[in-house]
Amino acid sequence: MPSEYAHHFGINNIPYGIASSSKHPPSVVTRLQDSVLFLDPLARTGLLSGHFGGEVLETFGKPTLNSLATLPKDDLKVLRSALQGILKNLEKLQGCVEPIENVRMHLPVEVGDFTDFSCSADHMLNAGESVTGLRNLPPSFRYLPVGYISRASGVKVSGTPFHRPWGQYRKDGSVVWAPTEQLDYELEMACIIGKPSKFGTRVKVEDTAEHIFGIVILNDWSARDIQSLEMPPLGPMNSKSFCTSVSPWVINPEALAPFRSTGNVPAREEPPNGVMTHFSGPGREGYSVDLTASVVSPKDKDSKTILCRSNLSTMYWTFEDLIAHQTCNGAFLRTGDILATGTVTGKEKKTSHGCLLELTAGGKQSYGLNNGETRTYLEDGDSVILDGISGEGVGFGDCTGTVLPAQKD
Amino acid sequence: MPSEYAHHFGINNIPYGIASSSKHPPSVVTRLQDSVLFLDPLARTGLLSGHFGGEVLETFGKPTLNSLATLPKDDLKVLRSALQGILKNLEKLQGCVEPIENVRMHLPVEVGDFTDFSCSADHMLNAGESVTGLRNLPPSFRYLPVGYISRASGVKVSGTPFHRPWGQYRKDGSVVWAPTEQLDYELEMACIIGKPSKFGTRVKVEDTAEHIFGIVILNDWSARDIQSLEMPPLGPMNSKSFCTSVSPWVINPEALAPFRSTGNVPAREEPPNGVMTHFSGPGREGYSVDLTASVVSPKDKDSKTILCRSNLSTMYWTFEDLIAHQTCNGAFLRTGDILATGTVTGKEKKTSHGCLLELTAGGKQSYGLNNGETRTYLEDGDSVILDGISGEGVGFGDCTGTVLPAQKD
Repeated sequence: MPSEYAHHFGINNIPYGIASSSKHPPSVVTRLQDSVLFLDPLARTGLLSGHFGGEVLETFGKPTLNSLATLPKDDLKVLRSALQGILKNLEKLQGCVEPIENVRMHLPVEVGDFTDFSCSADHMLNAGESVTGLRNLPPSFRYLPVGYISRASGVKVSGTPFHRPWGQYRKDGSVVWAPTEQLDYELEMACIIGKPSKFGTRVKVEDTAEHIFGIVILNDWSARDIQSLEMPPLGPMNSKSFCTSVSPWVINPEALAPFRSTGNVPAREEPPNGVMTHFSGPGREGYSVDLTASVVSPKDKDSKTILCRSNLSTMYWTFEDLIAHQTCNGAFLRTGDILATGTVTGKEKKTSHGCLLELTAGGKQSYGLNNGETRTYLEDGDSVILDGISGEGVGFGDCTGTVLPAQKD
Repeated sequence: MPSEYAHHFGINNIPYGIASSSKHPPSVVTRLQDSVLFLDPLARTGLLSGHFGGEVLETFGKPTLNSLATLPKDDLKVLRSALQGILKNLEKLQGCVEPIENVRMHLPVEVGDFTDFSCSADHMLNAGESVTGLRNLPPSFRYLPVGYISRASGVKVSGTPFHRPWGQYRKDGSVVWAPTEQLDYELEMACIIGKPSKFGTRVKVEDTAEHIFGIVILNDWSARDIQSLEMPPLGPMNSKSFCTSVSPWVINPEALAPFRSTGNVPAREEPPNGVMTHFSGPGREGYSVDLTASVVSPKDKDSKTILCRSNLSTMYWTFEDLIAHQTCNGAFLRTGDILATGTVTGKEKKTSHGCLLELTAGGKQSYGLNNGETRTYLEDGDSVILDGISGEGVGFGDCTGTVLPAQKD
């Protein structure tokens, strides 16, 4: 029987990831349905000979995608095409292929810097209302993608559990030091940088695409009580840095090209004085990715309750805008940098809220799980499953994490 | 004639850095007055034989200090002592020694994550007053070291010039896209992490010292106009990430031990409910480092105008507190992580302001340079020189940077 996400990985996907198995050390793989193809042994079969020089083939044995990600786009295009041909004869690839259940997936890249933006106007309005009661956008929201930088060390591959974080927060009129009582997820996507840019030189928006190696799903786990106390004025830090999960399969722009359009991208509300010239224009395009966020209770592990359905293409700022903004001051990109969208929330009340802060109006309203339990924020043992699919055979699989009880003090 | 900072590097200092010369590739060095000793060729002379195993000696040829920094403290203690002995006979070390003017210094570590805190109550009060007119501390200041995470890629070694950054900011009632008009420095210090910690497990404050490899001076260059627009609510990003300078010589805790005391460390204003148990107690100690910040005009390159004198030991939060806080949520330390103090400002009005935002009351008051020029924020061609010394023969040298004109759009 095919796995739950087998249909995400058709012949038009050709994602990259890092996997290991009893037969193979961590190295570069791709996936067709439930078959995982290890590229390093594949290269040794000679099936790729004639397509590439050694500088391409030697990236396959590395324990991260960073070397592969820096290859010229033309090489990646030829590789994708070659793999599509080779995968039509899976039965000839014995020794290079493992079923998905026999491999362990690893963090796909060594992360450079990790920046998380806030691209959804709906999320900003809902989250602000949950905390302050007011539906206001931050003063700079229409001018630039607001964001914060998080700790790259906290980025972990899907499936990595983490302990409920301790911190300081306000409770009953005083500040306590205790495990968070408001643990939340954030349904996000992120681009991973391939080609680096230069210190001191901005990447113009029309040149940003060549720096995007691929796209993943990301969960920006958040402790809302810790966040409330620490955030003014320097932004979130300990409320976010304990763990950030990313999906293991990096989906490439070529696979997503058929799902890119101007259709759902919100109209830019352009200020009058030419201040937006370094961002994408009114005809900008976004990727359509249907996303869901689900919670699974430890009391009913076979049933996931879908709490959110939203779509990446409704973001006010695109990945191209994020790169243009990140580098417009002379900051530069390194291979493995992650630029994330922030919470992907839609317009539909209750059914498209990308985090629990929004869904529960700041913990004031509960929601029900399939098995009759109710929740506001996450409880110990809860798993959160994010997934996303663009269309026939082109999906992202899942990005999952489980909350372990807090460590002893 | 000795160089300006020769007296910072006496026999009790024994700093580490990464240098290269016409004869040596970038590798580990130490310094005595104006003599730079390359440790990799030193190891090959056999003078260190018997002291260490190969795992110590092989760190000397690396192009960063990261491997050296992870050595056990006991090994580092023996190495320090051995180098002190060897350096007494400098004339025997031909082939391993270069005069300081013949070497180029490099970034001392490959940076993991870079977090910048705000440890000075005086800075927070002055800076807040400059922007809002009110002398208030952030709500969490007495509870925890507030901070933000910056881009590790922006950390550059002293002497690296950078272009005046572009950005968006408010001007004359609208938002413009232009080079910053409020470029500032921040006089800071930072600890560099040696021994890493574990994902999910906090480092208790009494164990933090073993993770500190050494201390450097840091300049957190800031664009105040860009910062004002982007900061609410997620904190500073593009206003800081374009460049951060660090001094090339990492000064080790053993060299600084004689200058550590409780003397100037502000009394902790302890909340009543035991919420501060994971921080250092009332008897906590700080390092005394006399710091200066100076500006040099391109019109008078031989004259530096000292704008600030302050001392590290007056910070409300210590490096031990920063590490305890950074890891209390389960976030972990990697070798090469940088945790900085934020602006080191003293109590003296005008003479101990660690940045121009404070000194100029937000650009409203000008100051004079030695040559009669006046300034508010930095102008193109200006250099900023930060330096620091703890006492006889134990100093940090300087951390310098020069502002290049903005790139063309």
